[in-house]
Amino acid sequence: MGVVGGGVASVLDNRREQLSALVGCAVELKGVLVRDVAKPRAHQLPAGLITTDPRQVLDNPDVDIVVELMGGQDPALEYILGSVSQARHIVTANKEVMARHGPSILTAASEKGVQVLFEAAVAAGVPIIAPLLRDLVANEIIDIHGIINGTTNYILTRMANEGADFDATLADAQELGYAEADPTNDIEGIDAAYKLAVMATLAFRTKVMDIDVYHEGITKLTSRDFLHASELGYAIKLLAIADKVGDAVQARVHPALVPQDMMLAKVDGVLNAIEVQADLTGKLLFHGAGAGSMPTTSAVVADIVDIARNVAGNSVPPSNLALSDSVTIRPISELETRYYIRLTTTDRPGVLAQVGKVLGDLNISVASAIQKETDEVAQSAELVLMTHLSSESAMQTAISQLEALDVVAEVGNVIRVEEW
Amino acid sequence: MGVVGGGVASVLDNRREQLSALVGCAVELKGVLVRDVAKPRAHQLPAGLITTDPRQVLDNPDVDIVVELMGGQDPALEYILGSVSQARHIVTANKEVMARHGPSILTAASEKGVQVLFEAAVAAGVPIIAPLLRDLVANEIIDIHGIINGTTNYILTRMANEGADFDATLADAQELGYAEADPTNDIEGIDAAYKLAVMATLAFRTKVMDIDVYHEGITKLTSRDFLHASELGYAIKLLAIADKVGDAVQARVHPALVPQDMMLAKVDGVLNAIEVQADLTGKLLFHGAGAGSMPTTSAVVADIVDIARNVAGNSVPPSNLALSDSVTIRPISELETRYYIRLTTTDRPGVLAQVGKVLGDLNISVASAIQKETDEVAQSAELVLMTHLSSESAMQTAISQLEALDVVAEVGNVIRVEEW
Repeated sequence: MGVVGGGVASVLDNRREQLSALVGCAVELKGVLVRDVAKPRAHQLPAGLITTDPRQVLDNPDVDIVVELMGGQDPALEYILGSVSQARHIVTANKEVMARHGPSILTAASEKGVQVLFEAAVAAGVPIIAPLLRDLVANEIIDIHGIINGTTNYILTRMANEGADFDATLADAQELGYAEADPTNDIEGIDAAYKLAVMATLAFRTKVMDIDVYHEGITKLTSRDFLHASELGYAIKLLAIADKVGDAVQARVHPALVPQDMMLAKVDGVLNAIEVQADLTGKLLFHGAGAGSMPTTSAVVADIVDIARNVAGNSVPPSNLALSDSVTIRPISELETRYYIRLTTTDRPGVLAQVGKVLGDLNISVASAIQKETDEVAQSAELVLMTHLSSESAMQTAISQLEALDVVAEVGNVIRVEEW
Repeated sequence: MGVVGGGVASVLDNRREQLSALVGCAVELKGVLVRDVAKPRAHQLPAGLITTDPRQVLDNPDVDIVVELMGGQDPALEYILGSVSQARHIVTANKEVMARHGPSILTAASEKGVQVLFEAAVAAGVPIIAPLLRDLVANEIIDIHGIINGTTNYILTRMANEGADFDATLADAQELGYAEADPTNDIEGIDAAYKLAVMATLAFRTKVMDIDVYHEGITKLTSRDFLHASELGYAIKLLAIADKVGDAVQARVHPALVPQDMMLAKVDGVLNAIEVQADLTGKLLFHGAGAGSMPTTSAVVADIVDIARNVAGNSVPPSNLALSDSVTIRPISELETRYYIRLTTTDRPGVLAQVGKVLGDLNISVASAIQKETDEVAQSAELVLMTHLSSESAMQTAISQLEALDVVAEVGNVIRVEEW
């Protein structure tokens, strides 16, 4: 068995007996491909197993399962497809590859009669892929709402608790190791979009690719937004949302106001949570650590054991996900939701009338409007609006029109409000 | 396939296409055993399938999977064992049978090369059996904390929100259909004990039977307890707890004070939640509807599909749970935890000294003592104590000794305090 990644090798070694009992035979490490053989490793690997030569692992005829933990598209995709073509089973933690190429990999695997498992690609050790593949098969999935990026949830939790602004919190998160030196994939919602594409594909049994997921990051959020949201009874979370209306799937990642009494509003720090609403089960919540070496190892080894039992028992089940081709993707412009709008306006009469006219003319109905503190020197005031259900395209038009009003100094932020 | 239970028949029928695609062939209902053929049913069953004769279903040679949804031990156990001996696979929702006879049923099944699945036996449509059997195999489980009885959680939530007392809330819950006419199994913690035995058996890979689980119900809780708990920063929940210390497993069901900021404290109404702490994943929470026809159907059909795929693919995996015989059960008397104690005392000097002496002599250290409102007419006062970690056996002795004190009119309640 070819395994890349120290945590996995360590668990396979230290829990050999327990895992052998479940599998029916020993699970043996046959080779480990690394970038640098000399790098110090927490788990001592047997000499001769570790190599920088991909062919030594990938072409080893004794290998039944290839475990891909390198991340990124290249060369992981090539290794995965090559291994499938050689009739090897795959366990991968690669959200990017699965979000961009999952359906074609699964089709190739099905044709070759091999399994491809990827529990660790979403929320690490929190079971969500297996529940979608197995436990919920009798259901029609209605929607998925997830907090599936620990870095951004850590930043948002600190902003909420400390009244801090984004840039300072990000810098601190980087220093503490909660955010990477280049945080783009996390803070722009790209990482969450990958994971959402993978989940939506399974949930709706259709091909939802990374480019089908609308994503918007957390960089525009300010301490003012957290203050207002909290007063209005909401938390602010980076939500990954997928739902199906008729035959159309919509998938989107963006900051959202979430009512404080909903479970997802209470998910704090680096933790992840995914709420799946299905027609038989109702709402199910899966909550836990969504990243880290040990949780990832847990998911990867579970997938390895699953496949190894089948290999040992000569009983690999047919893997036919029956993904539909006929589902269409509903663009973000067709979203209907409620909105929070924060405006900096001039502090003089008639502001609300002009803002109200822009919104009213676009059929956006205001549920509440609160004028917040004014700055007497700058002669400005802050206006916070909550709308009723409105159309996204109308809202985008409204934002341009509001920005053009003389009485509006700045459209501070517009955040979607989600209740489900 | 023999299937008992309308929801399941309906889903197998209405989702035939979707399920066939996953299984690789059609899943067909071969017979339905009922108590009363004439009873009106939501789902119309094909004529000839429905019968009151067990042999017609159980001895049908075309049946691969027997689905047992009748509940209770007799005659369900006999049907299950009989079917296993005829090499039929089993799907059951029967917590009582699995808690009392699970290990012997699983051993018989393993010998016959058939599968026995029972996801619906705990928390209905919330996946917890499959995660323990599959997703967490690489882990050592540290502990399980669950709210796994919807009736009691509904009653406790209302008592907390409304300041109501137990008897009135139970009567109301019965009227609304949330509690049965004979609520004993729920309110005494017996139902939860069954479910905990099933989970602990899988989590610790050992034989934890129903009689190994200590259980204590919610009938002694009063509105005063909820008031004090809330002021101290705690919710009161009926917790099902299993953990392993050394080689000894302890399993217990009882009311507990849970810190308000923990996820389990926020699980309200009829909902269920199970928090599993494992060494690689950390804490995982599974949350959702733990009862009801539709959630149960979801779990049962998932188990049917799982087995049917294996049957269709001629690939039934070896089912060896490798349950250990060597694990011992740690009795409740050996518990160490913190305690909340509510006493009605005489309202005169020296009370605290006498109470404190009883506790101190038993090595029970008091963390805080609050004298609550006094009743001037009765010349009584209420004293609420929180202890540090103490031994259960010392606490039981303390309760007898406190009851014998002249200054103590009544030991109102003693509730364990759980933080993990």
